[in-house]
Amino acid sequence: MRVRRKYKKKQKVKNTSINQIPGQVTYVGNKVTENPTVEIINFDKEKVNRENSNQVADAFHYKNKDSITWININGLNHTNEIEELGKHYNLHPLIIEDIVNTQQRPKFDDFDDYIFVVVKMLYHDAQNEFISEHLSIVAGEGFVLTFQEADGDVFDGVRERINNAKGRMRNSGSDYLMYALIDAIVDNYFIVIENLSDKIESLEDTLFTQAVEDDMTHEIQDLKREVLRIRKAIYPLREVINRLENSEHQLIDEKTHNYLRDLQDHITQISENIEIYREMIWGLMDMYMTTISNKMNEVMKVLTIMASIFIPLTFMAGIYGMNFEYIPELQFKYGYFYLWGAMLIVFFLMIWYFRRKKWL
Amino acid sequence: MRVRRKYKKKQKVKNTSINQIPGQVTYVGNKVTENPTVEIINFDKEKVNRENSNQVADAFHYKNKDSITWININGLNHTNEIEELGKHYNLHPLIIEDIVNTQQRPKFDDFDDYIFVVVKMLYHDAQNEFISEHLSIVAGEGFVLTFQEADGDVFDGVRERINNAKGRMRNSGSDYLMYALIDAIVDNYFIVIENLSDKIESLEDTLFTQAVEDDMTHEIQDLKREVLRIRKAIYPLREVINRLENSEHQLIDEKTHNYLRDLQDHITQISENIEIYREMIWGLMDMYMTTISNKMNEVMKVLTIMASIFIPLTFMAGIYGMNFEYIPELQFKYGYFYLWGAMLIVFFLMIWYFRRKKWL
Amino acid sequence: MRVRRKYKKKQKVKNTSINQIPGQVTYVGNKVTENPTVEIINFDKEKVNRENSNQVADAFHYKNKDSITWININGLNHTNEIEELGKHYNLHPLIIEDIVNTQQRPKFDDFDDYIFVVVKMLYHDAQNEFISEHLSIVAGEGFVLTFQEADGDVFDGVRERINNAKGRMRNSGSDYLMYALIDAIVDNYFIVIENLSDKIESLEDTLFTQAVEDDMTHEIQDLKREVLRIRKAIYPLREVINRLENSEHQLIDEKTHNYLRDLQDHITQISENIEIYREMIWGLMDMYMTTISNKMNEVMKVLTIMASIFIPLTFMAGIYGMNFEYIPELQFKYGYFYLWGAMLIVFFLMIWYFRRKKWL
Amino acid sequence: MRVRRKYKKKQKVKNTSINQIPGQVTYVGNKVTENPTVEIINFDKEKVNRENSNQVADAFHYKNKDSITWININGLNHTNEIEELGKHYNLHPLIIEDIVNTQQRPKFDDFDDYIFVVVKMLYHDAQNEFISEHLSIVAGEGFVLTFQEADGDVFDGVRERINNAKGRMRNSGSDYLMYALIDAIVDNYFIVIENLSDKIESLEDTLFTQAVEDDMTHEIQDLKREVLRIRKAIYPLREVINRLENSEHQLIDEKTHNYLRDLQDHITQISENIEIYREMIWGLMDMYMTTISNKMNEVMKVLTIMASIFIPLTFMAGIYGMNFEYIPELQFKYGYFYLWGAMLIVFFLMIWYFRRKKWL
Amino acid sequence: MRVRRKYKKKQKVKNTSINQIPGQVTYVGNKVTENPTVEIINFDKEKVNRENSNQVADAFHYKNKDSITWININGLNHTNEIEELGKHYNLHPLIIEDIVNTQQRPKFDDFDDYIFVVVKMLYHDAQNEFISEHLSIVAGEGFVLTFQEADGDVFDGVRERINNAKGRMRNSGSDYLMYALIDAIVDNYFIVIENLSDKIESLEDTLFTQAVEDDMTHEIQDLKREVLRIRKAIYPLREVINRLENSEHQLIDEKTHNYLRDLQDHITQISENIEIYREMIWGLMDMYMTTISNKMNEVMKVLTIMASIFIPLTFMAGIYGMNFEYIPELQFKYGYFYLWGAMLIVFFLMIWYFRRKKWL
Repeated sequence: MRVRRKYKKKQKVKNTSINQIPGQVTYVGNKVTENPTVEIINFDKEKVNRENSNQVADAFHYKNKDSITWININGLNHTNEIEELGKHYNLHPLIIEDIVNTQQRPKFDDFDDYIFVVVKMLYHDAQNEFISEHLSIVAGEGFVLTFQEADGDVFDGVRERINNAKGRMRNSGSDYLMYALIDAIVDNYFIVIENLSDKIESLEDTLFTQAVEDDMTHEIQDLKREVLRIRKAIYPLREVINRLENSEHQLIDEKTHNYLRDLQDHITQISENIEIYREMIWGLMDMYMTTISNKMNEVMKVLTIMASIFIPLTFMAGIYGMNFEYIPELQFKYGYFYLWGAMLIVFFLMIWYFRRKKWL
Repeated sequence: MRVRRKYKKKQKVKNTSINQIPGQVTYVGNKVTENPTVEIINFDKEKVNRENSNQVADAFHYKNKDSITWININGLNHTNEIEELGKHYNLHPLIIEDIVNTQQRPKFDDFDDYIFVVVKMLYHDAQNEFISEHLSIVAGEGFVLTFQEADGDVFDGVRERINNAKGRMRNSGSDYLMYALIDAIVDNYFIVIENLSDKIESLEDTLFTQAVEDDMTHEIQDLKREVLRIRKAIYPLREVINRLENSEHQLIDEKTHNYLRDLQDHITQISENIEIYREMIWGLMDMYMTTISNKMNEVMKVLTIMASIFIPLTFMAGIYGMNFEYIPELQFKYGYFYLWGAMLIVFFLMIWYFRRKKWL
Repeated sequence: MRVRRKYKKKQKVKNTSINQIPGQVTYVGNKVTENPTVEIINFDKEKVNRENSNQVADAFHYKNKDSITWININGLNHTNEIEELGKHYNLHPLIIEDIVNTQQRPKFDDFDDYIFVVVKMLYHDAQNEFISEHLSIVAGEGFVLTFQEADGDVFDGVRERINNAKGRMRNSGSDYLMYALIDAIVDNYFIVIENLSDKIESLEDTLFTQAVEDDMTHEIQDLKREVLRIRKAIYPLREVINRLENSEHQLIDEKTHNYLRDLQDHITQISENIEIYREMIWGLMDMYMTTISNKMNEVMKVLTIMASIFIPLTFMAGIYGMNFEYIPELQFKYGYFYLWGAMLIVFFLMIWYFRRKKWL
Repeated sequence: MRVRRKYKKKQKVKNTSINQIPGQVTYVGNKVTENPTVEIINFDKEKVNRENSNQVADAFHYKNKDSITWININGLNHTNEIEELGKHYNLHPLIIEDIVNTQQRPKFDDFDDYIFVVVKMLYHDAQNEFISEHLSIVAGEGFVLTFQEADGDVFDGVRERINNAKGRMRNSGSDYLMYALIDAIVDNYFIVIENLSDKIESLEDTLFTQAVEDDMTHEIQDLKREVLRIRKAIYPLREVINRLENSEHQLIDEKTHNYLRDLQDHITQISENIEIYREMIWGLMDMYMTTISNKMNEVMKVLTIMASIFIPLTFMAGIYGMNFEYIPELQFKYGYFYLWGAMLIVFFLMIWYFRRKKWL
Repeated sequence: MRVRRKYKKKQKVKNTSINQIPGQVTYVGNKVTENPTVEIINFDKEKVNRENSNQVADAFHYKNKDSITWININGLNHTNEIEELGKHYNLHPLIIEDIVNTQQRPKFDDFDDYIFVVVKMLYHDAQNEFISEHLSIVAGEGFVLTFQEADGDVFDGVRERINNAKGRMRNSGSDYLMYALIDAIVDNYFIVIENLSDKIESLEDTLFTQAVEDDMTHEIQDLKREVLRIRKAIYPLREVINRLENSEHQLIDEKTHNYLRDLQDHITQISENIEIYREMIWGLMDMYMTTISNKMNEVMKVLTIMASIFIPLTFMAGIYGMNFEYIPELQFKYGYFYLWGAMLIVFFLMIWYFRRKKWL
């Protein structure tokens, strides 16, 4: 039951955004941090600078330098900081709105000076809870801005590669960094759907081997909901990557296009897997139904066998419990034992009959 | 049951429109108001005038002024007033027909001088009844006309923003006002589908925890019908907004196109959610079936356990109720107690057997 | 059951058309009239002439006049008359074949001199039987020919409007008459699907309130078949109207295009409704299944309660029916009453147990 | 069961074609004839020559004459003869391979000198077995070659029309003959799906009226398989005819295009019917499930009624079978009759209860 | 159960590729060989050279010769060798990554100098286990490179045809060799889906004739999973072949295009068959459900018959086991035999009743 409750809490869309003025920046998610975390990584071929701060302003001095600056902000509820950064990098108001609107589906927009991408970061946190986090990426000449709901992400591999002076990362532009970030997110989708696959198999095994308890339908329904949510996060991404790949924005290098094609391939692969898991889950309900029916069959068989054997025998005993004045068998010396014989014959006939029917 | 009856009343299409002359203006909805309500809001950057009247003619003097006039008419059964307004603003007869034809699906038409949009306004009224109201919008240079079936709408946020002299509304054209109205309606769709989500979860909980009553199928069927009706109202809107966004009508400003793209995004998001809810509802029926089967299993188990324990015992009692002249056990001094012993053994064997099968 | 039999009769396709020579005119429907009915209406702005005849030749003298002539023939089995008319109006042999081939699906063909449209006229006759009638329309400069299987149609509204000198009908060309005829047919589809909606709701109510009888599956299956048949008649019409709307045939006036767009809208609306009804009907089968299962649950509960209460009591009675020489309780003075006490305790324990389980 | 076995035999694909060299001519069907039958029909406006032979060479002298020659070969296992004919008419090796590859799906190919069409000839043979026969047609200037698996086809109507000197056949080119052959095959599809419709209705009736036996699921599954096989044969044909109709091959006369459009219409109609039958068959399984459930309900009712009436009565009898020393009722003079009275009251109460529940 | 376990092992995606640097060559499959097997076949019209080695360098001396060289490497875990070969033939790093990434779905890429194709080789190994092997083909002017996960493939037919001096293979370019390899793989798909068809029929027969055991749902679920996996391997191939066929790469000869069209046909045919099998498998679950229900019906009938016959008889015996002082029947001389007569009448009435209901 615990799992289901969790989902419930999340699914509820906080409609604080309703009836608000379009373009107005209001955070609608439910992760709230006290202070924004601003992670600033500036690098070029020669060196890497790394800073952690609570103020976006600390990152401003890197602007217009020849190096690449990655500014990663955790905490979408700090809309002021985000607006300040937006103003500094000249971002369109609707983009700021999309950054803090956690219900925004994955999208791609290209502007003259930068590219804007919204994706959903799916991962399981330390408590193995399924997390779908809203993540926005703005990539322009010499800078990449990322906006996350809260601390904790899947970018550790990217950070490492930035440190590695010989890797492609240090020798490429901000478009490659943007690609690497999306790639890290998509790679993580593989883990998420693998987790899904594990859950399906575990449920199948439970259905097959263990006692089936009442709340099985809920677990299956929850699994359905999870696969639908994953699908909802991933499907629009196909179009996003596709448009990114086909975009002729001057920021995206020809080589990066090759990598984006590769990414497109991965997304397609994930989508196909999701469809397969979806069919498997829908099949689980059928499996469960047949399991229940099989169980009922078993219950019925026990009842039928017990009743079919003892009801005739009880009848036979009842016959000779009657008080008629003249029941000849009662006077037989071995009448009682003859009757036992007859009862045993009936008993074994029944047993034989049920065995032949493979009920025993 | 009350909910179902309500739907029934609504679904019934009043076919007064059948066999009528095309282009003839006849109201076919079932909300009838005694007097039309005409709400006139005229504003420009400096001032806002607001009038309430029962006659459309009161709005005519604003025409051809430099300001923007929003005329909102409630009461589609007052076809004369609507035709009068139509004549004043030079509307095509087929448009007038669409305005009063509450069965008209969402559509978009552009004419030389104005844009015509039909949408469905979905909301829950004070009694929490689901209302689908037919709403038509005509937007031209300097004026926006809206036609509603009855009083009560979702435009209060828009009215407030018109009052606010500093907002974008007061500084934009009638295209932005039209956008703001559609946006208010679409924002309300989020509330409607959230309500749907609540109903689904409440049904799931009922299925899981409480005694399931007979009319569950009806509640599920009603939910199916509701989701189908919402879908019917929202799906055509995708195309409407799409055509609006791609329209090259001179009325629509470049900036408004940005907002329309945003709107398109919201509609897509709602459609995706509806599909998810639809799958969840279809899954509810399966859940219900398994719940019923599980209950039957439980009933059968009780029967089987009771019968399997007491039928053999009754048989044993029956044996020694027989009147054979010679039944040796009957003469045993402690025969009666030996039998009780045997019966207890049988009893506990059965209990053990059912426990092992996890039926107890 | 009567309804089902009827369908059967109709569904059977008379394959007299098989292995025949293409272009050969053979009537394959199953409505046969003794004499063709030829209804001739000739009108222009000033006057209306109306004639009823049994011979198409009576209509020939109107040809090449400046007025509009509508020739409506009932009775497709009179192929000679139809061929005669076809020759007079220079119709292509394949068109004549389509006119009498009642299995022809809705289609649109434009020729140099005329437009050919096949539609299905759906209506409920006086006995409330669902009728799908094959109807062909040929519209050319100054004439409209309609071919019906038998007497009885949905065109009375059109006839009235022709009589009305001030209506648009009298002032428009044959294209508008053709549009008006198709519009009358499409308007009638609304009645047909409303009837369908009534049947679905009536079945739902039966499922819910009344005793469910065995043939319910057949009624649902019949409903499925009906919705499939309606869909088959209506779906191709979408394409027909679409091609008509986009046709650049010189016969079709610009104004008529507006009306055709409106018609297209109606057809889309009907199609959407059919899809909704289809889903509702498919849902009925699930409802029925759960209803059956619920009934079985109820039956099982009665059995289980009866058996669980009386089997232990019978066992108790059986105990003291035994003939052991020494059963101490039998000698107790109030043994019999003590036993009754014990039995009542067992009885009420069972009742309490079943109440707690909400089975009582 | 016989029907199912038959299918099995056929479905098994003889994989002798696997790992063979592409373009190599190997027959993979399972109909083997000892000698090929070569039917040669040569005709022009004045005369018809008809020959039957076992050697294709007998047909060669007709080549390059001004008349039209139809060479029909039965027996695809005689690959030598087919290759010889192919060489004579200059056919591409891949075409020869397709002619003998009975697993080839319907296709259309146009070459410079001829048109190649593969269709599936569906019919029921004398034993009412469903036959799907591979048929290839090559049509060129002045000749039509047809290749069938075995004797027996649906072309008798075509043969008759060739004999008829006045028909269109004798006055048209080889393209019309090709059309007539395909038309004959498509016409036969109507009979096949009518047969399917009969089977569905017969199953529905069985489900409704008669005792349902165990193998019903198999009959339904077989029906599913049959409809899937028919669909597989017919669906690709839609594209074939479509490409044929749109082909600009010089062989196809403008008039023939009209006939091909007609054919396209027929194929669409058949496809729509198949979809309807498919849905009906899928519905049969649901019907069957409810039938089974209804039957179980009936069985349970009988058990419940019998048990609920007699278990309490048996208990009452058991009470007075006890051997307590003091059971006051036993001394009543009319105690036995009073008890009978009480038993009758219980009996009629139960009957009344079950009647009220409509179980009796 | 054994089959299911196997699948499980395979399905688990080894996520060693996650968070790795794009373009980095890491093998992620689970087949590991100690040494790579390098099979080198060099041929032209006159001669064939065949070498087996463990080092790719042994194949380098054939490069730039006028003959065609087929280098087949088994063992994708030897990434060094593959990279060495890649460097020699100038392959793009992303290609090398795709070659060793066994999770890569089928794809087609054309580069200036060569064509790159990824396919899945499906076959059943000696233990009849279903194997899906990742296979990459690089074809350039005068060379074809194939990369397999492990030893064992479906190319023996191709090897034989290379030996045959007169075949088309020896006289064609590397494009034909590439086609022949893909063709061999696709031919093998036919065997795989035939195997699937056999499994389905075997399951159907089990459902029909034999005792159905508990794990049937698992076998069906496994079959579902297998068909989904096959579909996943085959569907993308349609697009691959399509793009190959439409590619204007200079490597592909016009004649080869003909063969590729043929291949496209085969893939379509396989896809259609898979869809049919898929529907059959989904139908199996329904069949199984009805089988279970039928079985339960049978169980219930036995119980109902036994109980309905003996419960009334036991009641009758109970009546005369009562100890009322005055039960007149008990004094009848032949009372006992009269009762037996009455019991036999009841017995045969019950038998007759159940026979009429066709339960016996």
